[in-house]
Amino acid sequence: MTTLPDLRTDGAVVVVGAGLIGASVGMALVEAGVRVHVLDRDPAVAHVAASRGAGTDAPPDPATVQLVVVATPPASLGREIVAALSSYPTATVTDVGSVKALPLAQVRSSAADVQRYVGGHPLAGSERSGPLASASDLFVGRAWAVVPSPDCRPDAVARVHALVAACGATAVEMGADDHDRAVARTSHLPHLMAALTAATLVRGPGRHLALSGQGVRDVTRIAAGDPSLWSQIVLANAVPLATLLGELRDGLDELVISLDAQDPVGVEALLREGVAGTAAIPGKHGGAALPVAVVTVAIPDQPGALAQLFADTGDAGVNIEDLRIDHDPARRFGLVEIDVAETEATHLVEALGARGWTAHR
Amino acid sequence: MTTLPDLRTDGAVVVVGAGLIGASVGMALVEAGVRVHVLDRDPAVAHVAASRGAGTDAPPDPATVQLVVVATPPASLGREIVAALSSYPTATVTDVGSVKALPLAQVRSSAADVQRYVGGHPLAGSERSGPLASASDLFVGRAWAVVPSPDCRPDAVARVHALVAACGATAVEMGADDHDRAVARTSHLPHLMAALTAATLVRGPGRHLALSGQGVRDVTRIAAGDPSLWSQIVLANAVPLATLLGELRDGLDELVISLDAQDPVGVEALLREGVAGTAAIPGKHGGAALPVAVVTVAIPDQPGALAQLFADTGDAGVNIEDLRIDHDPARRFGLVEIDVAETEATHLVEALGARGWTAHR
Repeated sequence: MTTLPDLRTDGAVVVVGAGLIGASVGMALVEAGVRVHVLDRDPAVAHVAASRGAGTDAPPDPATVQLVVVATPPASLGREIVAALSSYPTATVTDVGSVKALPLAQVRSSAADVQRYVGGHPLAGSERSGPLASASDLFVGRAWAVVPSPDCRPDAVARVHALVAACGATAVEMGADDHDRAVARTSHLPHLMAALTAATLVRGPGRHLALSGQGVRDVTRIAAGDPSLWSQIVLANAVPLATLLGELRDGLDELVISLDAQDPVGVEALLREGVAGTAAIPGKHGGAALPVAVVTVAIPDQPGALAQLFADTGDAGVNIEDLRIDHDPARRFGLVEIDVAETEATHLVEALGARGWTAHR
Repeated sequence: MTTLPDLRTDGAVVVVGAGLIGASVGMALVEAGVRVHVLDRDPAVAHVAASRGAGTDAPPDPATVQLVVVATPPASLGREIVAALSSYPTATVTDVGSVKALPLAQVRSSAADVQRYVGGHPLAGSERSGPLASASDLFVGRAWAVVPSPDCRPDAVARVHALVAACGATAVEMGADDHDRAVARTSHLPHLMAALTAATLVRGPGRHLALSGQGVRDVTRIAAGDPSLWSQIVLANAVPLATLLGELRDGLDELVISLDAQDPVGVEALLREGVAGTAAIPGKHGGAALPVAVVTVAIPDQPGALAQLFADTGDAGVNIEDLRIDHDPARRFGLVEIDVAETEATHLVEALGARGWTAHR
């Protein structure tokens, strides 16, 4: 990567769609000193975003626009990208959609200038929505896929990299088909599996759910996401998803056969593949996953209790790799599971015990 | 429930199987003042458990034994329960297995005295194993299913309730078939779905996993559990699981059809069922789930940073309902998502901002 273009001096940036992602992009760019126009088909929504510091909602002079960021719902992405390429005849156009092959195909099948379109996909949370949820630092520390087509002009690709850098995110460059297969596997399939699993919970007696532990909560958590948004996302990525769902269904069929035949070898083979899958997810900071140990601590349910626990953990010089809070359905306290380096677990248990905590590995 | 029997004065308790669960039961009972014998088919394992305070590994006088806790692997549970009923002719016998109908059927089909067998199932973590991982407080605050058959003597049921209370757990009484259907839905099916989803991760190019976010980590986390143990568990609960896997497969088939037909109504219907499922899981302390908001905070990756964050959160008077740490694959810091009451989120963002944190809703 050579020097990136300077978004502050090269003209205006237009954000189309003033929801959570669009307004947050606008706010990040304004904070970085970039001139931003934030637009929405609903002028009131654009006005809210503008009032939060996402730019001006006044219309730009099209000739001065260097970059358009299309941040509309998935179903209208392709149409809006084509419209932007036409309305801003010299600008680079990017988007923030969760799938990339479909909008690219829509641009290609139009009369628009595909050389100026570079796909984008910031991997930031989407459980909230609307400009009131926006934040200039929404993308700080997140991955942001930059998805050029072979037709793209290099300066257009560089301009999108400058956008990613201005938002504080980390660019991951890949092709559209590759991107869509990647998110089908790492995001869309897990979402659908979480939804299918969560859907079974409401089909049994409610009292059965008293035996819910942290496992089922973790597996189903993302299924709480917006059904309308996720429906658009998975429909736009239906082809790679169909392949994966077919794979998953084959695995399910084999599992049913193994269970029916009481075949421990078949069941264990699947479970071992699952273990390998969890180990394949990149560890913290992209390195290989380190061996971690789990330290479980009982905490009273009151403000300040977690603070004291983590103060004591910090005093012990132990770094927390991850943690989970296990809610107790019956008592007024909870259990916290802290992941720490295997080599530090015993020390942490002793240090917390000395400070009066009930802690064990 | 009337007054529970006093385990300290009614004779000895025998724990059969000195792994994580058995040794932890022994330690909890010893701390409660109960006389415990901890046995294992491998005397060295029993000796380790005894040296950790789980009781004596000397053989008991069978006539003085009031209660036997069978804590062997799932595949040998039924056999060991039958053996215990025979070896300790006046004792109540319970177990700690994850399925309950199969061992009950094995007892019934034997010559053993089914009136003295009361099933049990503590819902404590099983990702670790062995007596070295044991802890007297492993069950504190956890649910513990107590599963009597219609044939059980009331004093036997009361003795198992006394065991649960001595371990600091909360008893949930239900029948064996009911229990097995409940855990099939809340534990075994989620585990298998997590494993099937995790297994797909290793079938694609490794570089695709760079787009892994917190969602796929949550969905697949429990798939890291011991394949041999989980294979025994799901095989022992194969019948209720087959029904649920059939339901899930029907949902999957419908989903594939909806995706193939580009039918948003069908896809959204499934996703809405998933949202309902996540809402049906009991909230903290058994109440209905409260509306929570998510506050995201960037934290440097160093000892003490989380401590400072939670100290500042405690100072703001805000109670943390749950939290997740989102590891950044590229940078030396992470993002923490804190769930707080909807009504407290704005206050927390402002309070953290005033103390120098980068925080947003």
